[in-house]
Amino acid sequence: MVVASASLASANLPRTLLPAEIAHLDNLSYNEQGLIPAIVQDYLDGTVLMMAWMNRESLQKTLETGRTWFWSRSRQALWPKGETSGHVQWVKQIRYDCDSDALVILVEQVGEAACHTGARSCFFRTLPEKEGDPMPAADTLSHVFAVVKPARRIPGPIPTPAACWPRETTPS
Amino acid sequence: MVVASASLASANLPRTLLPAEIAHLDNLSYNEQGLIPAIVQDYLDGTVLMMAWMNRESLQKTLETGRTWFWSRSRQALWPKGETSGHVQWVKQIRYDCDSDALVILVEQVGEAACHTGARSCFFRTLPEKEGDPMPAADTLSHVFAVVKPARRIPGPIPTPAACWPRETTPS
Repeated sequence: MVVASASLASANLPRTLLPAEIAHLDNLSYNEQGLIPAIVQDYLDGTVLMMAWMNRESLQKTLETGRTWFWSRSRQALWPKGETSGHVQWVKQIRYDCDSDALVILVEQVGEAACHTGARSCFFRTLPEKEGDPMPAADTLSHVFAVVKPARRIPGPIPTPAACWPRETTPS
Repeated sequence: MVVASASLASANLPRTLLPAEIAHLDNLSYNEQGLIPAIVQDYLDGTVLMMAWMNRESLQKTLETGRTWFWSRSRQALWPKGETSGHVQWVKQIRYDCDSDALVILVEQVGEAACHTGARSCFFRTLPEKEGDPMPAADTLSHVFAVVKPARRIPGPIPTPAACWPRETTPS
């Protein structure tokens, strides 16, 4: 898996946007409440973590600071993701669609949970509810990454695959 | 990569929904126009293909038929995806979020394009526009799959990895 090495957050932030970037923000299509849906996706394995709403100001703050800011419709206020939980989302890339009325924000999620329930993704339930549903492959990759990630942090020699999985017998 | 072997489409469809399933549809949170955003994601590699809107009726038809139906806000009509293009989306799984006000539809996309522009994903532009942006890993997997997919269709012995990539010299 190729890991993107650069991110919006790696630049000198916070920063002042260029006039062309400001103009770009104005060219997006916001709804009658001045909002645009933002789909937040894990940049590594593609898991859709959450969907929230941005207005022009929150999108500008996202670009300026390199982390996600949303607009809370219930509180009618800007909402910096992770402010209380620490589960900040560092932005790797922002995409917009063919109608310029929806965003995909590719992020590096700090912590294991993007959802306020503690789940990694807000989309943890299926319709219809089923036990033993086949796990979509995109999620399988998420789990593989969760297994491999700690091994990457072990100092010293590169661990063997056996070190990444639990085993019943102790190596001799 | 583990590939989900079952899908909603593999059951005997079209089918009549169970009373519990009907009740489930009523428990979702639709907005003031009776709509809920539906994020359509490739079930294999996690690419977000498009975002569209569903109302209760289009979601019910999606469950009944095993393919995506949306609500066109501009035409104020039900819209079966792929009706004219043939680019049908077979539904593998439907997820809903912690607030019950957004859906992720995991699909098998027929054809190479989910977008009316001919692009695989509607989210083919970045903000700010940049040449040579680092490619998010989720997209890298999409490209790997595009390379590997044709090889899976070759009848006969399982192809070697070399058969999947172009090579300058002809095998002896």
